[in-house]
Amino acid sequence: MRLSTWMRFAMGGMVTAAITVATAAMAQPGTGPQRVFVNTLMPQPSQLTAGDGSLIIAPGFSFSFDKTHDDRLDGAVDWALERLKHQTGVMVQDAPSGATGTLVISVDGPGEAVQGVDEDESYALEVTAQNVHLHAATDVGAMRGLETLLQLVQADGRGFWLPVVSIQDAPRFRWRGLMLDVSRHFEPVGVIERTLDGMAAVKMNVFHWHLSDDQGFRIESKIYPKLTGMGSDGQYYTQDQAREVVAYARGLGIRVVPEFDIPGHSTSWVVGYPELASAPGPFSIERHFGVFDPVLDPTRESTYEFLDKFIGEMAAIFPDAYLHIGGDENNGVEWKANTKIQAFAAAHNLKGTAALQAYFNQRLLPLLTKHGKKMIGWDEVLTPGLPKDVVVQSWRGFDSLAAGAKQGYSGILSAGYYLDHMQTAADHYRVDPVPAKSDLTPEEAARILGGEACSWAEYVGPRTIDSRIWPRTAAIAERLWSPRTVTSEDDMYRRLAVESLRLEELGLTHISQEEASLRALAGTQQIDPLRPLMSVLEPVNFDTRSNWSEHHGITTLSPMDNLVDALPPDPPSRHDFGDLMSTYLADPVAHPEEEATLRQAFRSWAAQPETLELLSTSPQLAEALPRAQQLAEMGAMGLEALSYVSSGVAAPANWKSQKLAILDDAQKPVALTRFTVLDAMRALVNEAGSRQ
Amino acid sequence: MRLSTWMRFAMGGMVTAAITVATAAMAQPGTGPQRVFVNTLMPQPSQLTAGDGSLIIAPGFSFSFDKTHDDRLDGAVDWALERLKHQTGVMVQDAPSGATGTLVISVDGPGEAVQGVDEDESYALEVTAQNVHLHAATDVGAMRGLETLLQLVQADGRGFWLPVVSIQDAPRFRWRGLMLDVSRHFEPVGVIERTLDGMAAVKMNVFHWHLSDDQGFRIESKIYPKLTGMGSDGQYYTQDQAREVVAYARGLGIRVVPEFDIPGHSTSWVVGYPELASAPGPFSIERHFGVFDPVLDPTRESTYEFLDKFIGEMAAIFPDAYLHIGGDENNGVEWKANTKIQAFAAAHNLKGTAALQAYFNQRLLPLLTKHGKKMIGWDEVLTPGLPKDVVVQSWRGFDSLAAGAKQGYSGILSAGYYLDHMQTAADHYRVDPVPAKSDLTPEEAARILGGEACSWAEYVGPRTIDSRIWPRTAAIAERLWSPRTVTSEDDMYRRLAVESLRLEELGLTHISQEEASLRALAGTQQIDPLRPLMSVLEPVNFDTRSNWSEHHGITTLSPMDNLVDALPPDPPSRHDFGDLMSTYLADPVAHPEEEATLRQAFRSWAAQPETLELLSTSPQLAEALPRAQQLAEMGAMGLEALSYVSSGVAAPANWKSQKLAILDDAQKPVALTRFTVLDAMRALVNEAGSRQ
Repeated sequence: MRLSTWMRFAMGGMVTAAITVATAAMAQPGTGPQRVFVNTLMPQPSQLTAGDGSLIIAPGFSFSFDKTHDDRLDGAVDWALERLKHQTGVMVQDAPSGATGTLVISVDGPGEAVQGVDEDESYALEVTAQNVHLHAATDVGAMRGLETLLQLVQADGRGFWLPVVSIQDAPRFRWRGLMLDVSRHFEPVGVIERTLDGMAAVKMNVFHWHLSDDQGFRIESKIYPKLTGMGSDGQYYTQDQAREVVAYARGLGIRVVPEFDIPGHSTSWVVGYPELASAPGPFSIERHFGVFDPVLDPTRESTYEFLDKFIGEMAAIFPDAYLHIGGDENNGVEWKANTKIQAFAAAHNLKGTAALQAYFNQRLLPLLTKHGKKMIGWDEVLTPGLPKDVVVQSWRGFDSLAAGAKQGYSGILSAGYYLDHMQTAADHYRVDPVPAKSDLTPEEAARILGGEACSWAEYVGPRTIDSRIWPRTAAIAERLWSPRTVTSEDDMYRRLAVESLRLEELGLTHISQEEASLRALAGTQQIDPLRPLMSVLEPVNFDTRSNWSEHHGITTLSPMDNLVDALPPDPPSRHDFGDLMSTYLADPVAHPEEEATLRQAFRSWAAQPETLELLSTSPQLAEALPRAQQLAEMGAMGLEALSYVSSGVAAPANWKSQKLAILDDAQKPVALTRFTVLDAMRALVNEAGSRQ
Repeated sequence: MRLSTWMRFAMGGMVTAAITVATAAMAQPGTGPQRVFVNTLMPQPSQLTAGDGSLIIAPGFSFSFDKTHDDRLDGAVDWALERLKHQTGVMVQDAPSGATGTLVISVDGPGEAVQGVDEDESYALEVTAQNVHLHAATDVGAMRGLETLLQLVQADGRGFWLPVVSIQDAPRFRWRGLMLDVSRHFEPVGVIERTLDGMAAVKMNVFHWHLSDDQGFRIESKIYPKLTGMGSDGQYYTQDQAREVVAYARGLGIRVVPEFDIPGHSTSWVVGYPELASAPGPFSIERHFGVFDPVLDPTRESTYEFLDKFIGEMAAIFPDAYLHIGGDENNGVEWKANTKIQAFAAAHNLKGTAALQAYFNQRLLPLLTKHGKKMIGWDEVLTPGLPKDVVVQSWRGFDSLAAGAKQGYSGILSAGYYLDHMQTAADHYRVDPVPAKSDLTPEEAARILGGEACSWAEYVGPRTIDSRIWPRTAAIAERLWSPRTVTSEDDMYRRLAVESLRLEELGLTHISQEEASLRALAGTQQIDPLRPLMSVLEPVNFDTRSNWSEHHGITTLSPMDNLVDALPPDPPSRHDFGDLMSTYLADPVAHPEEEATLRQAFRSWAAQPETLELLSTSPQLAEALPRAQQLAEMGAMGLEALSYVSSGVAAPANWKSQKLAILDDAQKPVALTRFTVLDAMRALVNEAGSRQ
């Protein structure tokens, strides 16, 4: 049984536990020649065969191309070798061309001029004790293989090495995306680029850029300057910046699909161009969250003339075959209130909002076609008569997606991958776009192109976005890349802990942000006394935060610097503590070491004077004082429970119900935080209380 | 006596110590009405009078201008209020114009169109229980006052507030700069901008941008594209980016002085333009560190024609009155080896390298004048006949600076402010451009404009630059702004710890980088077992690292991802542990609490299995294994010493010499690290060993 590093160290104690996975590569420290390969690949490749032996990474390590290479591939190789250099201290030399390098990169051709859904991303990686062969059909396949190669690097006190291994790999799904909402809160280009770095590291290939919504219009239009001039608060991407992002993404083998959400979610359009709207206006940028009334007027020719020019302008910036037109959550209020629109609907026999929106989409389609774009939209675009080459993105769920596939539509899944819901990595990991139990025919199943993680930005800003996306998105990336059979959540979490560090090395701040925020809130660099409590807290779920925010008048302009913003969702404590507890409870007598670790954890939960003092230093931390008290109660409860379980002595009659009541109380939101350990504690209390 | 947060928490123990400064504002937690103002201003203002009472920062807090304001001031106020919002959660409302806001900003005028040496940076800040009045003559003065206002904010568990206070403030020196070498290692614009944010926070006003040197030419010239085309490895600023930096700096009240280091330190110029050189070439970008031979040819008219056009091009980008021409460390080798140059020198009666360089500077001066620039250069430019309006930047020392001032030259001090020397904040803090003992007349002293911290970049990259600059530069900034009488190092360190957190809130990574690097090196998120050791280690000094680097063939292309790069110079442990030790040793019997804290520290220094295991996980950490052993020895030694001191029992005859020998051994570099606690340990051993 594995004792995680978290359990061993978070308690600050002296537990001498089994070698952990993260450090297992040093199983023979210092002397012996044997090196143990620990597979931390994420996503897991489709086929991997490990051999004996290793290839030491040492000065003299060289690389060469033995087929073609172009600027993009050169850049990708440079970037990979730069990271290898930073990790190992070894500068990889150029070898003469041909198969002379320690690393031979063999690529058949550059791949598509504009990367598409069918780009070949496969690669093969052969590591022997002498050298590495990376073969791919395209630059993009080579990029995927280079990421795998970097993930294969093993370290111990003696040096860095690669295991002898043979890998044949290709993605299960062709569309593996991440959607960023930059409307509700804007993200600077630097954040976008580091997010792309993270995506490439876990082999994602579509950056879906949600560029407009009620709360802001985020890309410069030179034809319609009032879109950002009046609809963005000055927070938008210039066209040059957008082109830079597209080029940056292409360098990583990532497509960029821009979304302009219409006809609803369009307040930011009509602030500057009220003539597009279905109500008289004037309009102002929406500061709140939810579904709002502003919607484009589908009955005026001028609307389509505007969209024609606008789409043409955007098509010149975004080369991808697809343009996302949103299409979600049009509440129809303004359409119903507008007699002219209603008259139009009646004249055209369009019954209801959905029919009118279908008309709008039918008018939109030829505009997209004219500018060389295919349409993708959210569930709601799927209306009768929709051409079959429209892709449907399902936020409603698998059934909706499958229904589309049966009708002949291609689709991607996003239901279950909403990062803002503050679910666990395991929750997302369990969501399969084509589950084993699916009744789709192979032909229908093939229409399901993949999925996209969605980062909606009600409560996300540049400081916190990384911890909201990473590392959980790596689990989604694996679901979309790896074979369906790769489903072990324990193994996923083991590798996720390593991937999380690799992502940090890329420049992502998902780990360091928590510490920096806690330092800021506590007003001191010494936040050790906060760690036991903070390590078992996470943000409340989306609904709880939304309700609270509505009640407290939170808007897009409100600060996001509270404790809830500092805490990452699904911190290591949930899985590690749960794993420890279930191992222990499965056979308490056989697990004295786990019992000792649990006891130490419970003792560390006592409310220490330093902790309480630090919690009192700022209003935002002071809100969490009840959490310290609750954790102390759970610590005491845990120690009692362990004594009942281990001694076999029965707990008093009402003990269990009293303790479960305390846990129920701890389940309630405080300071927009929740505990990660309640399920495990319930299991312990139930076990201890059942021995009567 | 103050027990620092570091001492209380770094040990992981339960010490219930005196309230620390960082948390002193919560001296009356929860209930009582009295709020205690803790002055953490950095730099300290020239005059501060604290009154009774406080102004609560709560919803409804508003601001107004009661005189003029322009875009720049609006931007500065927005930025300040945005930070106030992030800190306190309170959104400051616009009040009607005039003196109606809770914060009334009263600015007489915008200040100079191009900020100069004589820009008025003074301000007055009056906080009453009802409102805040900020008055300044210029936008820049208002910016300085806004930073002070933000630093005045106090927090406790009940909320945020401002103390009633009256501040009159103006800088002691007019030139308070930071020089960044971006040639030896390039820094992206994002790093430059966050560095500017930090500078503004501590009221610095000159960004000296060292844009060319042997190792790289870092700014685009459209006239001479081979400067970056062949001399930069593609790492340079476009002219647009440079203009962006200049505008960004102006928004913060910071001048940008570009440096083009000539005639020496010019290898990167002559890679693309060998016709400028004094030797035949060809040349390649220098990868090593030190002083090299390439030097511009001062005898050819074409050299000056080139410089004329180049300076004209740069003058259009950098509006500052000054242009820095470097002028340092010309070794004269190529001039001496070139018969044509020697013949020229003989013909013009120029004896030796210095005379020839003086000629070069004399030729350069009218070119600068033609393009509206004044000259600034390093010490070496100060040669007979130099016009008095040239400013001399002294890297040689105060004597050189004073000598210039006596001759009538204005100067700025950089000797003593070299951040790459890995000195302590206190070391820099003690260096005064016009020390009390100076024999300069008031008129001469007035010629000393100020000083500049210098970040030379042999061993600095984008990941590590923040910890090399911050927080130590804040101590230099205070030396240059605050009255000469502000000299308490203890108080400086107390405030520096708070300023360090404020700088982190601005987006600087000087604290989080250490942790992220240790996670990367250790391969785990759980680095607690490394903390006791890492908290008492810091990088070796510049000379030690240079010698090592030369021996190991380190170049500009070598990775900088070793333990030495992770560790910050002058970490809190040195001052805090030294302070604790000296308090204890001054009167051991009277300080049982300090003794207990020391004992706990010494116990935490024992080499734990987890620590050794983590140190074994990577080659870079494994190098530091001897340090763990040494720390354990020092812990044992410390416990023994405490027992001798506290018991009055004499140590054995050879005890002291044995222990001092161990400390001498620990003084030697290991893994390019050194201990921060050796002086304090020596004091303890000497005390314990003297009781025979």
